[in-house]
Amino acid sequence: MKNSDFIIFGLTNATKIAQDVANKLKVKLGKCTTTKFADGEILVKFNETVRGKDVYIFQSTSKPVNDSLMELLISIDALKRASAKTINVIIPYYGYARQDRKSQGREPITAKLVANFIKYAGATKVVLMDIHADQIQGFFDIPVDTLKGTWIMMDEFLKTHKFKDLCIVSPDYGGVKRARNIANSLNAPLAIVDKRRPAPNQVEVSNILGDVKDKDCLLVDDMIDTGGTMMAASKLLKERGAKSINIMCTHALFSNNAIEKFNKCIKDGNISNIYISDSIQASYEYRSKNIHVCSLAQFYAEFIKIQSENKSISENLYGKQIEKLNAKK
Amino acid sequence: MKNSDFIIFGLTNATKIAQDVANKLKVKLGKCTTTKFADGEILVKFNETVRGKDVYIFQSTSKPVNDSLMELLISIDALKRASAKTINVIIPYYGYARQDRKSQGREPITAKLVANFIKYAGATKVVLMDIHADQIQGFFDIPVDTLKGTWIMMDEFLKTHKFKDLCIVSPDYGGVKRARNIANSLNAPLAIVDKRRPAPNQVEVSNILGDVKDKDCLLVDDMIDTGGTMMAASKLLKERGAKSINIMCTHALFSNNAIEKFNKCIKDGNISNIYISDSIQASYEYRSKNIHVCSLAQFYAEFIKIQSENKSISENLYGKQIEKLNAKK
Amino acid sequence: MKNSDFIIFGLTNATKIAQDVANKLKVKLGKCTTTKFADGEILVKFNETVRGKDVYIFQSTSKPVNDSLMELLISIDALKRASAKTINVIIPYYGYARQDRKSQGREPITAKLVANFIKYAGATKVVLMDIHADQIQGFFDIPVDTLKGTWIMMDEFLKTHKFKDLCIVSPDYGGVKRARNIANSLNAPLAIVDKRRPAPNQVEVSNILGDVKDKDCLLVDDMIDTGGTMMAASKLLKERGAKSINIMCTHALFSNNAIEKFNKCIKDGNISNIYISDSIQASYEYRSKNIHVCSLAQFYAEFIKIQSENKSISENLYGKQIEKLNAKK
Amino acid sequence: MKNSDFIIFGLTNATKIAQDVANKLKVKLGKCTTTKFADGEILVKFNETVRGKDVYIFQSTSKPVNDSLMELLISIDALKRASAKTINVIIPYYGYARQDRKSQGREPITAKLVANFIKYAGATKVVLMDIHADQIQGFFDIPVDTLKGTWIMMDEFLKTHKFKDLCIVSPDYGGVKRARNIANSLNAPLAIVDKRRPAPNQVEVSNILGDVKDKDCLLVDDMIDTGGTMMAASKLLKERGAKSINIMCTHALFSNNAIEKFNKCIKDGNISNIYISDSIQASYEYRSKNIHVCSLAQFYAEFIKIQSENKSISENLYGKQIEKLNAKK
Amino acid sequence: MKNSDFIIFGLTNATKIAQDVANKLKVKLGKCTTTKFADGEILVKFNETVRGKDVYIFQSTSKPVNDSLMELLISIDALKRASAKTINVIIPYYGYARQDRKSQGREPITAKLVANFIKYAGATKVVLMDIHADQIQGFFDIPVDTLKGTWIMMDEFLKTHKFKDLCIVSPDYGGVKRARNIANSLNAPLAIVDKRRPAPNQVEVSNILGDVKDKDCLLVDDMIDTGGTMMAASKLLKERGAKSINIMCTHALFSNNAIEKFNKCIKDGNISNIYISDSIQASYEYRSKNIHVCSLAQFYAEFIKIQSENKSISENLYGKQIEKLNAKK
Amino acid sequence: MKNSDFIIFGLTNATKIAQDVANKLKVKLGKCTTTKFADGEILVKFNETVRGKDVYIFQSTSKPVNDSLMELLISIDALKRASAKTINVIIPYYGYARQDRKSQGREPITAKLVANFIKYAGATKVVLMDIHADQIQGFFDIPVDTLKGTWIMMDEFLKTHKFKDLCIVSPDYGGVKRARNIANSLNAPLAIVDKRRPAPNQVEVSNILGDVKDKDCLLVDDMIDTGGTMMAASKLLKERGAKSINIMCTHALFSNNAIEKFNKCIKDGNISNIYISDSIQASYEYRSKNIHVCSLAQFYAEFIKIQSENKSISENLYGKQIEKLNAKK
Repeated sequence: MKNSDFIIFGLTNATKIAQDVANKLKVKLGKCTTTKFADGEILVKFNETVRGKDVYIFQSTSKPVNDSLMELLISIDALKRASAKTINVIIPYYGYARQDRKSQGREPITAKLVANFIKYAGATKVVLMDIHADQIQGFFDIPVDTLKGTWIMMDEFLKTHKFKDLCIVSPDYGGVKRARNIANSLNAPLAIVDKRRPAPNQVEVSNILGDVKDKDCLLVDDMIDTGGTMMAASKLLKERGAKSINIMCTHALFSNNAIEKFNKCIKDGNISNIYISDSIQASYEYRSKNIHVCSLAQFYAEFIKIQSENKSISENLYGKQIEKLNAKK
Repeated sequence: MKNSDFIIFGLTNATKIAQDVANKLKVKLGKCTTTKFADGEILVKFNETVRGKDVYIFQSTSKPVNDSLMELLISIDALKRASAKTINVIIPYYGYARQDRKSQGREPITAKLVANFIKYAGATKVVLMDIHADQIQGFFDIPVDTLKGTWIMMDEFLKTHKFKDLCIVSPDYGGVKRARNIANSLNAPLAIVDKRRPAPNQVEVSNILGDVKDKDCLLVDDMIDTGGTMMAASKLLKERGAKSINIMCTHALFSNNAIEKFNKCIKDGNISNIYISDSIQASYEYRSKNIHVCSLAQFYAEFIKIQSENKSISENLYGKQIEKLNAKK
Repeated sequence: MKNSDFIIFGLTNATKIAQDVANKLKVKLGKCTTTKFADGEILVKFNETVRGKDVYIFQSTSKPVNDSLMELLISIDALKRASAKTINVIIPYYGYARQDRKSQGREPITAKLVANFIKYAGATKVVLMDIHADQIQGFFDIPVDTLKGTWIMMDEFLKTHKFKDLCIVSPDYGGVKRARNIANSLNAPLAIVDKRRPAPNQVEVSNILGDVKDKDCLLVDDMIDTGGTMMAASKLLKERGAKSINIMCTHALFSNNAIEKFNKCIKDGNISNIYISDSIQASYEYRSKNIHVCSLAQFYAEFIKIQSENKSISENLYGKQIEKLNAKK
Repeated sequence: MKNSDFIIFGLTNATKIAQDVANKLKVKLGKCTTTKFADGEILVKFNETVRGKDVYIFQSTSKPVNDSLMELLISIDALKRASAKTINVIIPYYGYARQDRKSQGREPITAKLVANFIKYAGATKVVLMDIHADQIQGFFDIPVDTLKGTWIMMDEFLKTHKFKDLCIVSPDYGGVKRARNIANSLNAPLAIVDKRRPAPNQVEVSNILGDVKDKDCLLVDDMIDTGGTMMAASKLLKERGAKSINIMCTHALFSNNAIEKFNKCIKDGNISNIYISDSIQASYEYRSKNIHVCSLAQFYAEFIKIQSENKSISENLYGKQIEKLNAKK
Repeated sequence: MKNSDFIIFGLTNATKIAQDVANKLKVKLGKCTTTKFADGEILVKFNETVRGKDVYIFQSTSKPVNDSLMELLISIDALKRASAKTINVIIPYYGYARQDRKSQGREPITAKLVANFIKYAGATKVVLMDIHADQIQGFFDIPVDTLKGTWIMMDEFLKTHKFKDLCIVSPDYGGVKRARNIANSLNAPLAIVDKRRPAPNQVEVSNILGDVKDKDCLLVDDMIDTGGTMMAASKLLKERGAKSINIMCTHALFSNNAIEKFNKCIKDGNISNIYISDSIQASYEYRSKNIHVCSLAQFYAEFIKIQSENKSISENLYGKQIEKLNAKK
Repeated sequence: MKNSDFIIFGLTNATKIAQDVANKLKVKLGKCTTTKFADGEILVKFNETVRGKDVYIFQSTSKPVNDSLMELLISIDALKRASAKTINVIIPYYGYARQDRKSQGREPITAKLVANFIKYAGATKVVLMDIHADQIQGFFDIPVDTLKGTWIMMDEFLKTHKFKDLCIVSPDYGGVKRARNIANSLNAPLAIVDKRRPAPNQVEVSNILGDVKDKDCLLVDDMIDTGGTMMAASKLLKERGAKSINIMCTHALFSNNAIEKFNKCIKDGNISNIYISDSIQASYEYRSKNIHVCSLAQFYAEFIKIQSENKSISENLYGKQIEKLNAKK
């Protein structure tokens, strides 16, 4: 790998992870500055040449969503005009992912709109992480690599838990497919939190489908926003005699006062551990050692290394993760 | 509605439905001919002028998939070059819909590719029916109207069944969201066929989540291909004491010898009724009065009428369907 | 003019002006709602049908710039997917207009990027107002109508001032061309605030080129951001014996505490009147009767009327303004 | 030539030629699998990494035309999404080539439509062989290399025939230009099969323009479909005393029962030899040693080698062929 | 036909024909002015509003080719930016038509490049006349109407000649297809001027295939450039006893001193009549009553009328021409 | 720098500068030929392979503007089709630059149209020189490098003039910004030629703002067309006691008889020196040693070298120029 051929930049919402990746790769992080003017406009400038280089630019389009998105798009424009050879946009958290279809008439499909903008601005490749719906890949006409960070967090989880007691739990019907895939990979049992009305006009009741008693339960989802669903699911698992209740999700939005609530759940013993990634750069302290922030940096560093060497991502990056996990079983 | 402003055509896989729609609208179906040459190439010619007209062209991209798809794309090209004002492509069954994401490395996303081709060929609007994944709307940059034919078949079902005994059943986890949406609309209970391994290395067991005993069960899905999943689910419902077992799905592919098998199930009393639409033009006889083929023709006719008058589809088309159903409760 | 053929919407930063325009045209303003979720994402929904209609949508991409820009782009996407016939985007204030070129290496050209996004999202026409650089028209490949609101404010100014005492003043070299054009149109004298170093290493001195003594001076510019340049110019005009010092600019950004400072200047007698438009919807009270906010609503109403009737904008809209002004001379 | 930089794949209609080319270049043929599902849909998967590689993919869009075309387009999509560096599409036989213009109103121009699809799917270069009309190059906006395989077959023909007795014959007026170009290159005499009505209302008579008596006649065309024209021309040449009657055409479609008929002609002595290429992968045995299938594999192998080394195709590939032929004169 | 809905303009190389068409349609020709500055740059301005109108703009991209082409492209840009509803580009003579393929390596395909430019500039439809190669239609992705002006000239020819003595002659092999089509339509005999070498190294000899003795010969081609081929053919026809020698071609480029030479041929009795159209606006006098310039104006006027009424071109425009001709037989 | 990787071509209006650049880089200039046919059409052919190469093609789109522009566009098409790796279009003088906005209704924006054509034809990068308006960069979506040749001429000027007596003069208000930038870079005083009406209905008077007495005045602009403004300014500077009057402008169009007039001014002592670049290839002799034609060849050669090595243009190319100038102070 000739490091001089590529350069890594980190925008406002991903400065830390970009720096971590650069450290892992033992390269200097590229310098760029984002200025916000009095009138709210943004200007991004790159302080070193990108002419003819493979550029990797990190940005999570998390809160403030529109600012971080425009910062990314403006950066791509600047890089394109500065004659970068390739512009690889690494988006640990892809905002607007849930707006991926019209749920009613006269709605936008913002996840597609943003995909178009990234392409039109000049990106040559996009790298997504644990994307909300797989179909979002298809919103792009340029190559998309969709990484699966779940294994990083699973790895952390398995340091202190054993396979044999594990039960994967989906907090609602919407996430059943994701949970099932994880369960299948690990050959673990699956449970589902079931909110249903047994008959018309009756009260909604929550139930757990599957046996969770004396299990190390792992509630999985791709993102936690305000956290309500997860907390309700945790409470139910507790009632049904779960040995431990753990949460694993890649994207920790923690909107409103979610972090306070989760800390309270941990303190109260309703939740044992929360495994999240650093896909979203936290603007606050997590203040609890039971919230495990698993870094994606090594994963991204390997991705960049593999790509630089034109090797197969699916064989080298995923292969190794699964291998490591299987070795633990 | 000035009928002279629009014209309807039906391609090989949708000649019947197009004719039915034209009849409902009391207009003459436009004439076009598809020729297949000795070398397998197709030529589509339109035998009446489309200059300045709003064209509605029907085609299901069902078996033979690639032939019917190319026939559609070639037709769009011909209509564009013949100066049609708008080209509204009505696709009762959208083939390749399940190839909507890369499930592994180095796979295509054919549902997106086809969406691009329809746009590039010159379509100005696409009308889809009970689409496999809602995100497919986002694969198009041109306007897409996604119609919901479920209510047509539900209407037929409710002619002989009562609301109060109804139970909506999803045949697997993948279709839970669709089933739940229907159940919610009808305020009906939901059940799920659950295939899980209770623990690693144990045999997969099937189970029914939810109470189906003495219920008129309605297994719902968007499409039936070879029918295996539906038949297995029916068997299970039978074992659990369902009063009647009914199947409702919009797109009846009935691949391989599915139709024979379903007829046998009906004969054996494992399945009571099958409700399908005419989104796919059958090349064979269904031979059983318990297979109810509900025509989408009236629905499409109303759609064209509403669109011609620039009224709201969501208020006029869906509104009326739901109203009719609610009147029955 | 058949009003039923078009519909007007106003987004967050332009609700008031859109309502005013609708009132002038005696049509009902279209209903749309913008929701901001806990995670910062925006959703725009249109509450009435736009199918087959000519849509006029108002939005100023002023502070918060990126939010208002994304709100606009998302809206265009929604309108396109909802089968609007034409999407006419009226942008009273076009943010990022000053980022219209690379001033150094590796900078973006955000004004172009935004123009591309507006086109790609699906707009069919853009209507700009007193644009920062005329070349921005060329950033669009779709038709752009560039309106000149200056005459609205000039009209207001001339209600209380006489032609014969008027002197147009440019606050710096950058605005000389704009000031000269106005002066030429009115056949008025021109003055320039000249900041120069007489020779290397000497202190910058400010000077007024042109005779301003006993004149009703009108400092003109397209936008006021923090207001520093205008205030310095006003001070200098005062020193040189101007009879009255007036400021006219279309876009009143009034960033930071500009509004307080201007109110103080007026109170102190350094500035007589400030003429601005309502291109930017103020989030505060101007609190001074000497700040004249001239509404562009009538102007936009006439524009929409003329366009609906397929008449010439340049002959009907501008022609009438100039005629009115000349009638006053 | 660093072989590791490029990789060759062969799709269903070109597996044999792709393997032959790989053998000539002493590289391993890339592995890819095409699956056809019960419902007729196709899935193409590439079993080795193409990340950063120059990919050469072979496919003839011959019968079944639409299947092979879609297989190609889907493959290009998969390769693009898998981050191939360049996608060089080698199409030995380009189907739909004869639909290159509207011959009447409301017809498509399918050869252009297909060219657009190949570009939009993501191909970066197209390599065509003895294309039906030269203008088809212009249907593409991406680079097209149009190879001339005629010389490969001519080479074979000249192994057993002498220049001095040669006469090039065009089987109809449509192919006169092609025949004349070959005749000019070889400095050989030209004859034309002339079907004309001497005057209105008279019977069409066939005639040979040019002297074919005692000549080794070589009937040339780009493709043979059902073979009717060629057989009629052969019969006429026989009547006029040709010494031997030979047919040379690159693309042997042999639709319907053409192959049986030609074999009979050979047996009957009406046709001496048929020289065709392997541009179309035969699904049957030719069963006659007088049907000479000249392989294009060496030719393609040289093309790939020259392109890999960034040398001139026109100087190296064509130059050498003509040189070899001239050496024989 | 509401005339107020469309407007016709004529650029420098087509002012006369545009005026003639406007006269036939009894509408006023739109006013536009083309200015050529001292530095050679062109500016086109439209002096009346085109907002919301169907614009028909005439220009032949004949000599000076690049100036007239740029004038057309600039005009399309101006019309698009001025909000024309549709821009119908009528090109009586399409320059660069012969550069429709790469005849050698590293050549451009300028006819395609120009087609792309016309589309990108903003044309919504193109109307071509007797195009050099039919495939050029396929160079456009927008609708193309290809008119056939031959019948206008044929009509003129038949005023003074009888069907029964007619013989259609192609001046070389390249034009055989065009001549054959005309001959077939008229049910007339065909002759070909045949330039061949009977054997290698022998002198090229010219011959006439077909019987021309005592015939009214009509040499047909799409364009005459310097005229050499036509004059040689005429000489040969004379030698073979043709009763009269007539030339018919749509596009009279008459490059170099062609007009002088043809006048001499007519004077010398080698050529009886020349029938050309006014597709190319002559900058000189033809000075011979035997050069018949047949106006396309009526033809274009009917085209615009038919298109305005959204009727079929192929049935109404061509149909009537053929009908008239058949009536004469 | 591996010279074999890139190749330089010069078109008709830039053959000399391209040859000079090739000489500086010690590479052979690529061979290409432009043919103009009798009918005015152009054909460009490249006589050596460009397959896989970085191509640098020089052309000034100066008089004859449309011919040189089409020659450039056709060349780009040919290079693209010939599989060039990158096509770097170096345009020393960019014609139509002043048509960069609509100054009235229904005007084109030709500078943008041309930018689009260059992109669509296939250019991958554009290199402009001292562009008329900086916003023109934004007309391109592909990377643009905008070089500043001013320093080359300044360098020549300073060989015989001293910093301390220098005064930069703008010949009108339109060029004030350009002049100010140069003055600021050199830390030199600024003067402006001021043409104003002191009051309505009074005669326009010319004035010099700033002190020019006993100064070596340097009138700067980007281009000289007919030269009228410059000559009037020179006369005025003379009257105000300038020590010497010098003119510096990059693009010497010298339209009409400008060159004669300037020579007379020099002879009469009204102008001391004129510093121009060779961005426009003169078709005549300048005939005066006081007209200094400063070659941009070394500058372009360094640009190509820096780009080939993927270094920063702004640091290496501009940096060195400014350094050299500062060393002189």
